[in-house]
Amino acid sequence: MPGLADPAPGSGPAPGHVWLVGAGPGDPGLLTLRAAEALRSAEIVLHDALPGTAVLGLADPRAVLIDVGKRKGHAPWPQAAINARLIAAARSGLRVVRLKGGDPFIFGRGGEEALALVEAGIPWRVVPGVSAGLAAPALAGIPLTHRGLSGAVTFLTGHDAAGDLPSATALAGTATLVAFMALSRLDALVLAALLAGRDPATPLAVIARAGLPGARILRTTLGEATLAARRARLPGPALMVIGAVAGIAALHGAGNASPPTTARPRYSPSAPE
Amino acid sequence: MPGLADPAPGSGPAPGHVWLVGAGPGDPGLLTLRAAEALRSAEIVLHDALPGTAVLGLADPRAVLIDVGKRKGHAPWPQAAINARLIAAARSGLRVVRLKGGDPFIFGRGGEEALALVEAGIPWRVVPGVSAGLAAPALAGIPLTHRGLSGAVTFLTGHDAAGDLPSATALAGTATLVAFMALSRLDALVLAALLAGRDPATPLAVIARAGLPGARILRTTLGEATLAARRARLPGPALMVIGAVAGIAALHGAGNASPPTTARPRYSPSAPE
Repeated sequence: MPGLADPAPGSGPAPGHVWLVGAGPGDPGLLTLRAAEALRSAEIVLHDALPGTAVLGLADPRAVLIDVGKRKGHAPWPQAAINARLIAAARSGLRVVRLKGGDPFIFGRGGEEALALVEAGIPWRVVPGVSAGLAAPALAGIPLTHRGLSGAVTFLTGHDAAGDLPSATALAGTATLVAFMALSRLDALVLAALLAGRDPATPLAVIARAGLPGARILRTTLGEATLAARRARLPGPALMVIGAVAGIAALHGAGNASPPTTARPRYSPSAPE
Repeated sequence: MPGLADPAPGSGPAPGHVWLVGAGPGDPGLLTLRAAEALRSAEIVLHDALPGTAVLGLADPRAVLIDVGKRKGHAPWPQAAINARLIAAARSGLRVVRLKGGDPFIFGRGGEEALALVEAGIPWRVVPGVSAGLAAPALAGIPLTHRGLSGAVTFLTGHDAAGDLPSATALAGTATLVAFMALSRLDALVLAALLAGRDPATPLAVIARAGLPGARILRTTLGEATLAARRARLPGPALMVIGAVAGIAALHGAGNASPPTTARPRYSPSAPE
C-alpha cells in the first residue's frame, strides 16, 4: 500500500509537489524530523501566522516565505487564494511546503487544500504534526486520558464554520474536552457545557501560548471559569481543557525539570527571519 | 510560568531526571526534534513495544535499552515495575528517557508514570509526540476535521481499564470517532456505535501499521465493517476511524507523491539494534 509508505528519509517535496506540513504548536523542538527536512528543502513556503518565528528559521535562507495567515479575524489571504498560490507554485516546478500550525488535519483546513490540489492534479502528501491540542495540555501537566478519570477525549473548536457552538452531545459525551481557539468564545462554550449537564465543579484549565514566551495557565472550574478568565486577561492563542484530568494537582509542575530558555534552535545551519 | 517553558534546545534529560517522550507512530520521520535529542543524550531508555525498530536506532549506542512493552495481552513488565525501574535509574544519577508510542498522555499511561515520579521526588517532564490517532488517518488521506463534515473528533479506546466499552454518548456525540487498539474489539465497538444510533452507511476505515512496512487500509461502512474486517485479516496495531471524513474518496491517494522506502533514517550517526 504505497499510500501509507514512508517517504525517502531526508527528502522533502519533489519539484512540482506540495507537502502539507504540520508545524506543531510553535516550539521548534516539537517539529518532526520530516517537517524539518521538508522545510530545509522547500523552495517556497506558504505558512500560517505561527505563534513564534523560530520554526521558520529552519527554512533554507534562499526559500521564498509567504505569510498567508489570519490576523485576529482578518484574512488577507482567503482560502481560495492560498489554494491558487499553492497550485501555481507547484505548476512552476517548485518544491512547495504549506506549513500549518499544529497538525494539518486537526482544525487546519488541510483537507480543503488537499482537495484543491487533487482537483488540479498536483501530487501532494501530508506530514502529521504535534497538535497544540496535545502539546499544550501535556506541558501544563494534564494527561488527556488517565485510568479511572478519562477514557476518551474530544477535540472541538469554540465555533464551527457557521459560527455555531458544538452540540450538547459533543459537550457532554466524553470525560475530557479540549477546545481550540477558545478565548473569544470562552463564555459561550462554558455556558453551553453547563447547559449540557456538566458539573460546575469540573476542573478547567486555559493554557495560553504553551511552549512560547509569555505562556500562562489559568486553573479554575467550569462554574468559575467565565469570571476567572475575565480577570486573568490571557493572551492568545489559547486552548481550554475541561475535565477531571485538569485537576491532577500533583502533575502541575510538569516541565519544571529543565531550565527555560529563549535561545534559537540549534538544528538550523542558518536562521534568517 | 516555568512549567510551560521550552527546555534548552539540543538538551536531553539532566542526570537524575526522567523525560516521558512521545515516539510518534513508529515512523522515525515523525519523531520530534526534541525527542530525537532526548534519545541521543539518554543513558538509559525504557521503551514500549514500538511498531518498528528504526526509532530506537537514534539512541546513543552506549545507552542501555530496556523493552518494557506489552506483547499481545502479556505484560512481562507490570506498570509498578516500570515505575520502580524509572525511579531507580533516576536515583542512580542517569539521564533517563521513557519512550512511549505516539503521545505519552493519549492512552499511554503517561499520567500514572508521572505521578509515580512526583511521589518519588524525581524531576521529570513530558515531550509530546505525534499521536497515531492523528498520523494514521492523515497518512490514509482522512482529515479528522473538515468544514461541513466534521467540527469535532473524539479519541477513545476499544475498551477502558475495566474492560467496558465507551459510553453511548461518547460514541454518538461527535462527527468523527477515532478508536485506538481497535482490532481485538472491533466487533463490539461497531455494534455499540450502531446501538448508539449511528447510521450503518457511515464511512469507516481501519488503518493497520500506518507508516510501517506491511501497512494496510480497509475502507468500508459501519454496517459492513464486522464482516469486512473478518475477511481482511488485518495485522496490528490498527486504528479505526468512523465518520463522513473517512469517505472523502478524492483524498485516498494521500502520500502517493513520494516513493516508498524501507531505508534506515539518516538522522542517526550510528544505529545499533
